[in-house]
Amino acid sequence: MNFRKKLGLFIDSDKVQNFIIFLIMLNALFMGLETFPWWTNALGQLVQIIDVCFITVFLVEILLRLYAHGLVFFKSGWNIFDFVIVAFSLIPGNGVFSCFRVMRALRIFRTARLFARIGNLRIIVTAMLKALPNLVWLLVLLFIFFYIFAVLTTTLFGKMAPEKFGDIFVSFYSLFSLMTMEGWQDIVETVKSPYSKVVFIPFMLISSYIFLNLVVGIIVAAMEDIVKKEKEKEEPNLKDLAEKVDRICELLEKKK
Amino acid sequence: MNFRKKLGLFIDSDKVQNFIIFLIMLNALFMGLETFPWWTNALGQLVQIIDVCFITVFLVEILLRLYAHGLVFFKSGWNIFDFVIVAFSLIPGNGVFSCFRVMRALRIFRTARLFARIGNLRIIVTAMLKALPNLVWLLVLLFIFFYIFAVLTTTLFGKMAPEKFGDIFVSFYSLFSLMTMEGWQDIVETVKSPYSKVVFIPFMLISSYIFLNLVVGIIVAAMEDIVKKEKEKEEPNLKDLAEKVDRICELLEKKK
Amino acid sequence: MNFRKKLGLFIDSDKVQNFIIFLIMLNALFMGLETFPWWTNALGQLVQIIDVCFITVFLVEILLRLYAHGLVFFKSGWNIFDFVIVAFSLIPGNGVFSCFRVMRALRIFRTARLFARIGNLRIIVTAMLKALPNLVWLLVLLFIFFYIFAVLTTTLFGKMAPEKFGDIFVSFYSLFSLMTMEGWQDIVETVKSPYSKVVFIPFMLISSYIFLNLVVGIIVAAMEDIVKKEKEKEEPNLKDLAEKVDRICELLEKKK
Amino acid sequence: MNFRKKLGLFIDSDKVQNFIIFLIMLNALFMGLETFPWWTNALGQLVQIIDVCFITVFLVEILLRLYAHGLVFFKSGWNIFDFVIVAFSLIPGNGVFSCFRVMRALRIFRTARLFARIGNLRIIVTAMLKALPNLVWLLVLLFIFFYIFAVLTTTLFGKMAPEKFGDIFVSFYSLFSLMTMEGWQDIVETVKSPYSKVVFIPFMLISSYIFLNLVVGIIVAAMEDIVKKEKEKEEPNLKDLAEKVDRICELLEKKK
Repeated sequence: MNFRKKLGLFIDSDKVQNFIIFLIMLNALFMGLETFPWWTNALGQLVQIIDVCFITVFLVEILLRLYAHGLVFFKSGWNIFDFVIVAFSLIPGNGVFSCFRVMRALRIFRTARLFARIGNLRIIVTAMLKALPNLVWLLVLLFIFFYIFAVLTTTLFGKMAPEKFGDIFVSFYSLFSLMTMEGWQDIVETVKSPYSKVVFIPFMLISSYIFLNLVVGIIVAAMEDIVKKEKEKEEPNLKDLAEKVDRICELLEKKK
Repeated sequence: MNFRKKLGLFIDSDKVQNFIIFLIMLNALFMGLETFPWWTNALGQLVQIIDVCFITVFLVEILLRLYAHGLVFFKSGWNIFDFVIVAFSLIPGNGVFSCFRVMRALRIFRTARLFARIGNLRIIVTAMLKALPNLVWLLVLLFIFFYIFAVLTTTLFGKMAPEKFGDIFVSFYSLFSLMTMEGWQDIVETVKSPYSKVVFIPFMLISSYIFLNLVVGIIVAAMEDIVKKEKEKEEPNLKDLAEKVDRICELLEKKK
Repeated sequence: MNFRKKLGLFIDSDKVQNFIIFLIMLNALFMGLETFPWWTNALGQLVQIIDVCFITVFLVEILLRLYAHGLVFFKSGWNIFDFVIVAFSLIPGNGVFSCFRVMRALRIFRTARLFARIGNLRIIVTAMLKALPNLVWLLVLLFIFFYIFAVLTTTLFGKMAPEKFGDIFVSFYSLFSLMTMEGWQDIVETVKSPYSKVVFIPFMLISSYIFLNLVVGIIVAAMEDIVKKEKEKEEPNLKDLAEKVDRICELLEKKK
Repeated sequence: MNFRKKLGLFIDSDKVQNFIIFLIMLNALFMGLETFPWWTNALGQLVQIIDVCFITVFLVEILLRLYAHGLVFFKSGWNIFDFVIVAFSLIPGNGVFSCFRVMRALRIFRTARLFARIGNLRIIVTAMLKALPNLVWLLVLLFIFFYIFAVLTTTLFGKMAPEKFGDIFVSFYSLFSLMTMEGWQDIVETVKSPYSKVVFIPFMLISSYIFLNLVVGIIVAAMEDIVKKEKEKEEPNLKDLAEKVDRICELLEKKK
C-alpha cells in the first residue's frame, strides 16, 4: 500500500472526519458570535487570527483529500461543494475583492455536511435528495408558468397599475406575492380592470394550491419509496417466488 | 406514400417540431422584451414586422398540419389549443377588434407546449393531467359549496355589512378571502352578529383545510399511481403467478 | 304489491328524484336571485308565492316518502337532513318566530344532495365521508389542545394583554388567529412577557403544521384506500393463491 | 399476592383510572372557570380550597402508584409526565416561589392523558407518536438551516436593517416570519440590498414549501404504515407462501 492510499484511508477515517465536522460546527458557532459587537470588541485582533486558523485547517484537509483521491475527488457532489466554499473563504476580505467579502459568510453552509453524518437525518435528507430532480423540474415548470403570466399581466395591466405590473420584474414579484397569498387583495384591487379577477383568481388557485400540492406529491412519493424499499428487503422477492413456481411447472410437465 | 402522408411525416418530425418550439420560445422572449419601453422605442416599426413574421410561420405550420392530418387533427387537445391560440393572433390589434387585442397576448400560453416535450417535466405534467378530471369535479364541489355560503351570508349579513356581503358577487369575493385566510379577522369582525363566528369559522376550517387537503389527496393518489405502474412493469404479474398455480393444481389432480 | 310499496318505488325512481333535485337547484337559484333588490322589486308578491310553491312540493315529497317507508325513513342520514331542513322551512317568517327566519335560508344546504348524485363527485365525497370519523376525532383533539392553551394563556397573559387574552373566549379567538398565522406577529408582540415566544412559537408549529398535516394524512390515507380497493377487485386475491398452494402441498404429501 | 401488587392492580384498574381522568377534566374545567372574575369573586376562599383538594387527590394517586410499582414507574413516559406536573403543582403560589406560580397552570396539560384513553383518538395519537422521532430530527435540521441563514443574514444585512436583522435572535424571529409568509414583503423590502431577494425568496421557498411538505411526508408515511399493518394482519403472509413453495420444490425434486 503506497503513501497516497494510506493518506486517503487516514483522511477519510471516522476519527478525522468527525474532528473536521467538529471544527466546522465550532467555526459556525464562532461566525454566530462574530455577529455580536461585544464579542468582536472583546477579542479584537484574535477574531481574524481564529478565522485564519480555521481556513488553514479546512484548506489543508481539502488539499490532502485532493492529493489522496486525485481527480476522482470531483465526482462527489459534497466534495465539489466543499471545494467551492473553501475556495471562496480564501478571497481576502479587503481591497479590490471587498465586494466578494460576503462570499466568505457562505462558509456557514458547510454545516450542511452534518446532515450526511447523523443517521436519522440521513433518511430525511435521502428523501429530499431523491425528490430533488423532480423538484428542480417543477421549479422550471413554475418559472415558465410565472413568465407566461408575467408577460400577460405586464401587457394587460402594466399601464393601469405600474407600481405592481410596470415591468416584467415587478410583475414577477407581484405574482410571487399572489402565490404566497400574502396581501393578495391589495394587488387584485390595485388593478382596476374587469379582467383582473378572471386572471388572478385562477392564477392563485393554480400556483398556490396545485403547485404546492405537486411539491407534496413529489416528496410523499419519494418518502414512501424509501419506506417501501426498506420493507421489501425483509420480505421475500416476488420475482424469486415466480421463478420457483415456473420450475415446479417444468418439473411436473417433465414427469407427465 | 402520397404527398399528404409525406408532408405529415415531415411536419411532425422532431427537427421541424423542435424548430417550432424554438420559435415559440423566441416569440415568448420577444413578447417579454416588448413590455419594456426601451426595446419598443429602439426597434420602432420592426416590432410589428417581427410579430407578423412569427404569426405567419405559426399559421403556415398549423395549416400544413391541418392539411396533412385532415379532421383527425382536432382529436388532440394540444392541437385544438394551438389552433385556437393561433386563430386569436390573427385578430388585428386596431379598429373594431381593438377590444380583442389582449387576446393576442394569450399566444404566450403556447410555451406550455414545452411541457410535453421535456422528458422529466412530462412525469409531473402526466400526474397533473391524470388528476385533472378529479380536480375539475372538486372545483364544481367547491363552487356549489361557495354558492350555498354566498346565498346564506348575503341573506344573513347583507344588511349588516353591505361592503363585504352586499350581494352574491361581493360575498363570493369575501368568502374567497376567508378561504385564503388573508385578512380573515377584518371580515369576521365587520359582521356584528352573534352568528358571525358560528358561520365563518366552520367555513374557514372546511374550505381552507379540508378542501386544500382533498387537492393534496387527489394529486398524491395520482402521483403514486404513476410510480406504482412503473414498478409493476418490472415485477412479475400476480395474475400470471395465479394462473400458473392453477395449472399445477390441475396437473397434480390429473395424476391422482 | 300494495299501494305503499308502489308509492315507495315511484317516489324513489330516478325520474322523480332527478325532478326533485332539479327543483332544489331551481330553488337555490331563486334564493340567490332574491338577494338582489331589482329581482324582489320586479316580482313583488310573486317571490313569496314561488317560495310557498317550492316548500309545498318539498313537503309533499318528504311526507310521501315518510308514508311509503315508515320509520325506516329515519335510518338514512340524508333523509334526516332533508326532514330537518324542510321542517325549518315551515317556520313562518314573521311574528313570534321572526328570529327563526334565518333558518329558512338553510334550505340552500339541500343542494348538497347533488353531491350524492353525480358519479365523479361521489368518489371525492366517499373519501371525505370515510375520513369523517377520524376528522371529527381530530377536531376533538384540537379542541382539547386549544382549551389547554386557552386556560394557560389566559392565566399567564390575561392581565398583560386583556384585549387578546382577557378571558377564555378571547383567548380561543387569538389562538385560532395564531393557528391560521394571520397577523400572528401582532398577537405575539402584544404580550410583553419573556414567556411569550416560548409559548406561542411551539403552539403555532404544532397547531398549524402538525395539525394541518394530520388532516392531510387522514384524507390521503382514505383516498388511497379507495383507489387500492378498486384495484384489488381486478387483481387475484392473495388469499386464494395461498389456499391453492396449501392444497398442492397436501396433494404432494399424500402421494409420498 | 402481597399488598403492593394488590394496590397496583387496584390503582391501575379501569374504574380508578377513569375516576382520576374525570377529576383531571373537572380540574381543567375549574381552571377554565377561575379565569373569569365573576367565578373567583363568587366562590372567594373556596377556589383555593377546591384547588388544594384536587392537588391532594392527584398527589395521593401518584404516590400510591409510585409505591405499588417501585422504580419501574419511571419507565413510562406518561408517568414521568404526570410526576413532573404534579410536582410543579406543589410549589406554593406566594413568597419566594411566586415566580414559579405559572408552573401550576401547566397542570392543565394532564388533560392530554385523555388522548391515550379514547380509542379513536389513539389511532391518530399513535401515528403522531410514530412520526415523532422523525419530526424531532426534522426540527434539528430546521434549526441548523435557520442558524445558517441567521448568521448569513445578520452578517449581510445587519447594518442595513438593524430592526430586522440586528443580531442573531432578531434574525431568527424575522426568518420565522418569512417561513410563515406573514408580512414577508415588509421584511424583504426593509433590506435595501440587491442580494435581498436572491437570499430571501429561496429561503422562503425551501423553508415554507419544502419543509412543510417534509412534515407532510413523514406524517403520511406514518399514517399509511399503520393502515397497512392492520391490513397485513388479515392477509396471508407472503413469507409463509414463499416457504411453502420452497417445500413443494424440495418434494418434487426428491421424487425425481
